[in-house]
Amino acid sequence: MKHLQWEIERMSSMRVPTFTLTLPDWIDEEIPETSHRFTSVESRMALVTHLAKVNVQQAGGPFAAAVFNLETQELVAPGVNLVVPLRASIAHAEIVAVTLAEQVLGHFTLNGPDLPSCELVTSTEPCAMCLGAIPWAGVRRLVCGAREADALAIGFDEGPKPADWQTALKVRGIDVVQDVGRDANIEVLQAYVRAGGMMYNGATIISMDS
Amino acid sequence: MKHLQWEIERMSSMRVPTFTLTLPDWIDEEIPETSHRFTSVESRMALVTHLAKVNVQQAGGPFAAAVFNLETQELVAPGVNLVVPLRASIAHAEIVAVTLAEQVLGHFTLNGPDLPSCELVTSTEPCAMCLGAIPWAGVRRLVCGAREADALAIGFDEGPKPADWQTALKVRGIDVVQDVGRDANIEVLQAYVRAGGMMYNGATIISMDS
Repeated sequence: MKHLQWEIERMSSMRVPTFTLTLPDWIDEEIPETSHRFTSVESRMALVTHLAKVNVQQAGGPFAAAVFNLETQELVAPGVNLVVPLRASIAHAEIVAVTLAEQVLGHFTLNGPDLPSCELVTSTEPCAMCLGAIPWAGVRRLVCGAREADALAIGFDEGPKPADWQTALKVRGIDVVQDVGRDANIEVLQAYVRAGGMMYNGATIISMDS
Repeated sequence: MKHLQWEIERMSSMRVPTFTLTLPDWIDEEIPETSHRFTSVESRMALVTHLAKVNVQQAGGPFAAAVFNLETQELVAPGVNLVVPLRASIAHAEIVAVTLAEQVLGHFTLNGPDLPSCELVTSTEPCAMCLGAIPWAGVRRLVCGAREADALAIGFDEGPKPADWQTALKVRGIDVVQDVGRDANIEVLQAYVRAGGMMYNGATIISMDS
């Protein structure tokens, strides 16, 4: 590990800072042992909804996601929205989960040679950026909780998405499953609003308190 | 710096690895001093095209981008495609540039309070993921070199983008300028093909040699 860190420092530009994508330390207490099997899509979504809920309690965004190994039914990597704490507009839950899953599996696509089929579970349907990231991530199935409309209803913008994004994924061989635990994930979005969570949409930053 | 590293290690999950987004060490030799002023859009694109060209020579993807401060005309952060070396499907040039620019300016959107207006210059029009990332990044203008069709012509997939993506950005207050140095950027794409560069599209990984 020290050697790896030295390699990173030796390899990197001195002029431009690096960016480290790292999960908050509370994650370890909220996820089961690596060998735990999530035998139903509902149980996989339940973990994701729980992580979104805790992220709101920890002053993060109301979104979580996770990549699961569909062959072993084990968690590969979780993700939560870390835009504000990491000062990174890309740090949406889905981006965090797929990027860390690629580090776990050691390949630039989860569809790489000799890798298991993977599923991305997300607490709310993906925004335009995360939708665009899904084909490159190489997951075989996308499972969604709350709908795009539920995120729009509390003031988030989903960005420039094609109207029929589900078909756009399906033609690339990615199954889409919607409305798994939708109500529980809407409740997390509403808890965020009640907690006075900040809405950030690039063009505008609006505190719910203002 | 050591203190910061310690903080990152203390804060981070022990179960899931971190991901570090870092530019290759050759970047420093290819970018001018921080105080250099890029006084025309053509000069800003010329740097980006040069970085894409060197990235191909360094066995990277044929794409580069950079964020510029429109008030001082200085480079904020460059980016090159690092998907294969970093084992990260999100590491497209535009994602790298905006994420590192946010670290330079210390905010989760380049449109944050007291920040200068920023421009994202990209060697080829953005894929669906990078397009979706642009509104969240808070840049005021997108400048493109090669067209989407030029990337498609060599086998890259642009992903699930809305048909009229230029208008989708413009209605969010982001100007779009196309065809700046298009021919020079097409030449970089063609050099990548001649070098036998790998095409990776999530669903398929095809070496140009095969």
